[in-house]
Amino acid sequence: MAAKLSIRIDLESGERIGPGKIRLMELIAATGSISAAGRAMGMSYRRAWLLVDSLNRAFGVPLVETQQGGASGGGAKLTDLGREVINRYHAIEAEAEDATLRHLGDLLDGD
Amino acid sequence: MAAKLSIRIDLESGERIGPGKIRLMELIAATGSISAAGRAMGMSYRRAWLLVDSLNRAFGVPLVETQQGGASGGGAKLTDLGREVINRYHAIEAEAEDATLRHLGDLLDGD
Repeated sequence: MAAKLSIRIDLESGERIGPGKIRLMELIAATGSISAAGRAMGMSYRRAWLLVDSLNRAFGVPLVETQQGGASGGGAKLTDLGREVINRYHAIEAEAEDATLRHLGDLLDGD
Repeated sequence: MAAKLSIRIDLESGERIGPGKIRLMELIAATGSISAAGRAMGMSYRRAWLLVDSLNRAFGVPLVETQQGGASGGGAKLTDLGREVINRYHAIEAEAEDATLRHLGDLLDGD
C-alpha cells in the first residue's frame, strides 16, 4: 500500500516546522527571493514573511538571510543551518516513511 | 532539544489518518460511544461521524463498529483492525520521534 506522510515538528521554541515551511525554504534557495518563493506557493508576501520570521525564531539562529538593497534590489538565501534543517527534515521524513510502509505492510498482512 | 511530532498519513484510498482521528478512536474505545468521544474532543456529533466514516473507508475494512439499539441504546467499539491501526500509528510516531531527536541533536551539535 502506498502512503504519503506529512510531518510537523513542534520545537521547544514554540515554533513549528512542517512541509509548507520546508517547501518555502527550498523555493527561497531556488529563487533567491522570499516574495518569489511565496508567489510560487500562492501565498501573499506578508504570509511568506511571517513564515520566514517563524523559521528564523525556531532555533534562535536564522535559517533565512535577507540582503537589503544592492544592484538586484535585495534578495534572500538560506544560511548553512537553513540548508541543514531541510536535509534533516527530509531524512526524518524518509525514516518515518520507511516505518510507515513497514507497519502498514504488517497491518494488511494480518501480522 | 525537546520536540513533539504530528504525523499525517495519506493512504492509497484517499483517506488520511492523523492525530485527531487516532485520538477519536482511542476515546471511542474508552467511552463506547462515538458521540461521547466526539464531545470529549469538543466536536459535533456530525463531525465525529464523518471522521468515523472516513476511518471506515481508509482500509476498505471497518475500524469502528456500531451497534444499533439494544439495552444500552446502541454504542460503538473498535474492530481488531482499529486497535491494530492505533498501535501501529503510535509505533510509527515513536520511530519518527527517535529520528527527529537524533537529527535535531546532530543539527544543534553542528555535526
